[in-house]
Amino acid sequence: MIKKLDHIAIAVRDLEASARTFQQILGIPPTKVQEVPTEKVRVAFFPFGGAEIELVQGLGPGNPVANFIEKRGEGVHHICLEVDDLEGTLARLAAAGVPLLDRTGKPGACGQVAFLHPRGANGVLIELVQRPT
Amino acid sequence: MIKKLDHIAIAVRDLEASARTFQQILGIPPTKVQEVPTEKVRVAFFPFGGAEIELVQGLGPGNPVANFIEKRGEGVHHICLEVDDLEGTLARLAAAGVPLLDRTGKPGACGQVAFLHPRGANGVLIELVQRPT
Repeated sequence: MIKKLDHIAIAVRDLEASARTFQQILGIPPTKVQEVPTEKVRVAFFPFGGAEIELVQGLGPGNPVANFIEKRGEGVHHICLEVDDLEGTLARLAAAGVPLLDRTGKPGACGQVAFLHPRGANGVLIELVQRPT
Repeated sequence: MIKKLDHIAIAVRDLEASARTFQQILGIPPTKVQEVPTEKVRVAFFPFGGAEIELVQGLGPGNPVANFIEKRGEGVHHICLEVDDLEGTLARLAAAGVPLLDRTGKPGACGQVAFLHPRGANGVLIELVQRPT
């Protein structure tokens, strides 16, 4: 089952400058700024009202976030939905013919994650996350 | 104050086909499909976990959603944040130099709304909504 909208990730060129921008808009500071070396990104989170805005900056050339900005400019990179049962949800989606980038969960920053293919969701990259209980 | 992430709007070419796609992904049907003639759009809402996914299809040529798809393809069109005081928030943002598309609120589908300029938010079109109390 889909529980809730977990976060919206925005691809940015300069994490510090963008964090100042969103701090101004949202009126709250980011709770954490961290590097995720396995994904070659740095991220900042703004949690409010049960969901988060995540700013994500690619580290070095050739990572997906830098490629995204190169092609499309800064903007919404993906949206993330929290599920209670990631493997069950992936099985349900695969059976329904929804195109998946990941057939099984993999470790992410906040739990087990998997991505659906944007071509099966009107161009939107959707991440599913099952947070640890 | 920003209360919560209200909804994510996704620009689509075919509302009915896209609603079937998202019903499959989310596992829930849309609660309503409605036409908003003043904005030349048709919309479908999927509420879950306190936020909504809104699918939006432009009606006829020359509307902003059709123009968006023409330029960028289908995908996330805007994100909407709920505020408790729209005019106060706009005044705070204007004073901070955040570029606004609307200096004051206007009637939207779910309350008074105003848009910030994407160039001041890393390419993301942000709507603010104050829902009626």
